[in-house]
Amino acid sequence: MTEILDESVRATLLGPLFDTGWEVERDGDVLVKTFTFADFTEAFAFMTRAALWAEKWDHHPDWSNVYKTVTVRLTTHDMGGITAADAKLARKMDQLAQ
Amino acid sequence: MTEILDESVRATLLGPLFDTGWEVERDGDVLVKTFTFADFTEAFAFMTRAALWAEKWDHHPDWSNVYKTVTVRLTTHDMGGITAADAKLARKMDQLAQ
Repeated sequence: MTEILDESVRATLLGPLFDTGWEVERDGDVLVKTFTFADFTEAFAFMTRAALWAEKWDHHPDWSNVYKTVTVRLTTHDMGGITAADAKLARKMDQLAQ
Repeated sequence: MTEILDESVRATLLGPLFDTGWEVERDGDVLVKTFTFADFTEAFAFMTRAALWAEKWDHHPDWSNVYKTVTVRLTTHDMGGITAADAKLARKMDQLAQ
């Protein structure tokens, strides 16, 4: 879960995430997506649900909220890049945002 | 609540906030503070409490969370600056963070 992904694993794990709007920024080491909701209550409800999973998995997002938008940045600080733990949390967030 | 503060009101309202660590950035139109907690659960608990007040008062922060820190930016977008509504939410956040 906490190793930097090699090329083939990376393509397999991240490909489906790119399809849902995730992007890789900053020399490939951060997975980023901005979620847009109907209003603040929906945005914060998403954050609350995601926070429980982040704490459960001990893997926390860097994220910001401006009214109805939530911008999420996922990386594994200890490894200096994207790992399977980031991909797992990204998938969960997509699911929670539906 | 939603008028830009004149100089004397501004000093009265913002003075006590400066004492608790709030600062004014970007040409004086945004009130900023970074809160640091024991861990993620404490940081997110603060955000949850603050979110309820923000929604109740229909005045929402721009904020970001990285593990145990929460950086809050308060401004009144419609007025292009800091109003009494920002000072009120700042005071509430100080209270909630205690």
